[in-house]
Amino acid sequence: MESAIDTHLRCPRTLSRRVSDDYLPAYPRFVARGDEALQQVVMGYFGVQYAEEGKRPWALAALRHIVGSFSLADGPVRHDLTHHVDDQDHHNLMVVAYWADPAAYCRWLRSEEVRGWWESEERLTEGLGYFREIVAPRVEQFETLYAFTEDFPGIGGVMGECSGEIEEHGYWGSMRDRIPLSQTDRLEPFGVLKIASGDPAAGGRVIVRGHDNIALIRSGQDWKAAGEDERALYFDEFLPTLETGMVFLQESGRKVGCYSNRFVHSIDIDGNELDESYNIGHWQSLDLLERWAESHPAHLQLFVMFVRVVATLENLRFYQEVSVSDGKDQMYEYINCHPRTGMMRDAVIPAGGEDRLRQ
Amino acid sequence: MESAIDTHLRCPRTLSRRVSDDYLPAYPRFVARGDEALQQVVMGYFGVQYAEEGKRPWALAALRHIVGSFSLADGPVRHDLTHHVDDQDHHNLMVVAYWADPAAYCRWLRSEEVRGWWESEERLTEGLGYFREIVAPRVEQFETLYAFTEDFPGIGGVMGECSGEIEEHGYWGSMRDRIPLSQTDRLEPFGVLKIASGDPAAGGRVIVRGHDNIALIRSGQDWKAAGEDERALYFDEFLPTLETGMVFLQESGRKVGCYSNRFVHSIDIDGNELDESYNIGHWQSLDLLERWAESHPAHLQLFVMFVRVVATLENLRFYQEVSVSDGKDQMYEYINCHPRTGMMRDAVIPAGGEDRLRQ
Repeated sequence: MESAIDTHLRCPRTLSRRVSDDYLPAYPRFVARGDEALQQVVMGYFGVQYAEEGKRPWALAALRHIVGSFSLADGPVRHDLTHHVDDQDHHNLMVVAYWADPAAYCRWLRSEEVRGWWESEERLTEGLGYFREIVAPRVEQFETLYAFTEDFPGIGGVMGECSGEIEEHGYWGSMRDRIPLSQTDRLEPFGVLKIASGDPAAGGRVIVRGHDNIALIRSGQDWKAAGEDERALYFDEFLPTLETGMVFLQESGRKVGCYSNRFVHSIDIDGNELDESYNIGHWQSLDLLERWAESHPAHLQLFVMFVRVVATLENLRFYQEVSVSDGKDQMYEYINCHPRTGMMRDAVIPAGGEDRLRQ
Repeated sequence: MESAIDTHLRCPRTLSRRVSDDYLPAYPRFVARGDEALQQVVMGYFGVQYAEEGKRPWALAALRHIVGSFSLADGPVRHDLTHHVDDQDHHNLMVVAYWADPAAYCRWLRSEEVRGWWESEERLTEGLGYFREIVAPRVEQFETLYAFTEDFPGIGGVMGECSGEIEEHGYWGSMRDRIPLSQTDRLEPFGVLKIASGDPAAGGRVIVRGHDNIALIRSGQDWKAAGEDERALYFDEFLPTLETGMVFLQESGRKVGCYSNRFVHSIDIDGNELDESYNIGHWQSLDLLERWAESHPAHLQLFVMFVRVVATLENLRFYQEVSVSDGKDQMYEYINCHPRTGMMRDAVIPAGGEDRLRQ
């Protein structure tokens, strides 16, 4: 049994862990381990949005173009693809890409091909929406949690190694306790989500400015290797409750501090659905994510179901990764997306901004 | 909005509160406030046990005798009466009495009348069981929580005053955060629950020795003033789930660290049921009480139901009081009770003790 916080990231605490030193979780869980040299990662969500089904081939082509750009110098270590329909009935194809080196990411982002494509006037006239939502948490700013020990999805796949059984799980507050920075920092939000340029209602290009300690969760389900019983368990019991929670966050997230929530289905490069899905949630703060998770009926119900069956699960795989990041390490850009897309929905338009922007 | 921890009990923290300084609960809750002079209280549970219904008149008479002794000099500030049937189908009449002054309690306990009655040989031959379970937490060792601001039951009635709306509630971990000593102490258990004298299997007199930081919860429901809708809500929705949790703790509590759990119904001095009930739980530690409360399906289900209706509740009253206490401030005595009664069930018989005790 070991701490979720890797040895080189431990420091004298000024804030206490929620549970006592002799706490023992009731079932095993693992976290990803990275090399000591790993200091900061980049999690980039790149999206293509379209309203009419007929545009799917073009959207898929755009997605393939973005994925193609990952093969350029300094591209990401890994990526995966998803599809979801949002609350405006728009389709969204997304690819999330992970870098282990923010400098490499910066060189990639600023390369002629990448910069040129995103800045091109063509992006404004193709009849598709595009967006980029990118955060770069330092290693002390994120946690992972896996029910399994190999083939880690997401950031775990970048980190490469697996811990032994970890202590900090199975209790409310353990997510925070797994984030190394929580040893000395409450991870409180500072600043306001703002429209930095552009006008969401008018379309075109919009930049949203984030703020310190926005929390980002990726929480996944993988039934690729699950047998009939586990598939039945997932589809008949977990999924309906999970969907209730996701619908709540999509419709009412603003009230509880959830800026954006997407429940996405994994796809291959041709758009075919795979047996994986995950939730991507941006929250005003880790506190508010904690409050929702531990008080919303649907999420509590999921936890109850989970506790009931956890000992029997074999090939139905659950995992999560949660980060906070500095405002300066966040980038949110939207091109011709509807105004409820991503971080635009809750971003404040600066005083006098609407007039100014519309001139 | 104020801290649940009264101003004169606040101190520089070495352990952090679970929530941030700007946390705001979603609904109002209150705690009892005592005078600064109040330093330590006594919570004494006195019981009469009988197996056959026919002994009820004698058991009620014994209960009335105990209650009568409260009128002696240095008797408790207040008391209330209950009945419950335990997992051995024995009936138990209990009276809980509260003192605001441990010295007064000691004088009362050692008075000729009280000491003489409990020590009398007659208690061993009357065909009734008796028990006393008494803890004396200091003011920094307990918390209260009420949905209402007057007519406090239990220890709140001794303390006398009511706080304004308090901050520390509505999240897992808030119970601990309301206990003043948690500012600097993890409230971890030290020591082992032991048979100090006597032999539970043989009956007669048994003394159980407690240990530091045994947690005691009284968690109550009061539907005296509730209208039809609230009664239906309580009896049709809350109670069945509450009973599921209580049955689990009665049958399987040992596995999760619950030494003793009683779901008791309030009665008047003639044994007539009142519209109140509560749970009395003794736990190995506050940690284990927290773990159960925040992970057992029945308790989570209660929480979900509660969150759903909290805004509409008017006259259905919920409250709790939770304490930890030093081993030296606990007393557990049993006279002719069945061996699963109270703290006897889980108390360790010292090595060689059974032989010794049976000689």
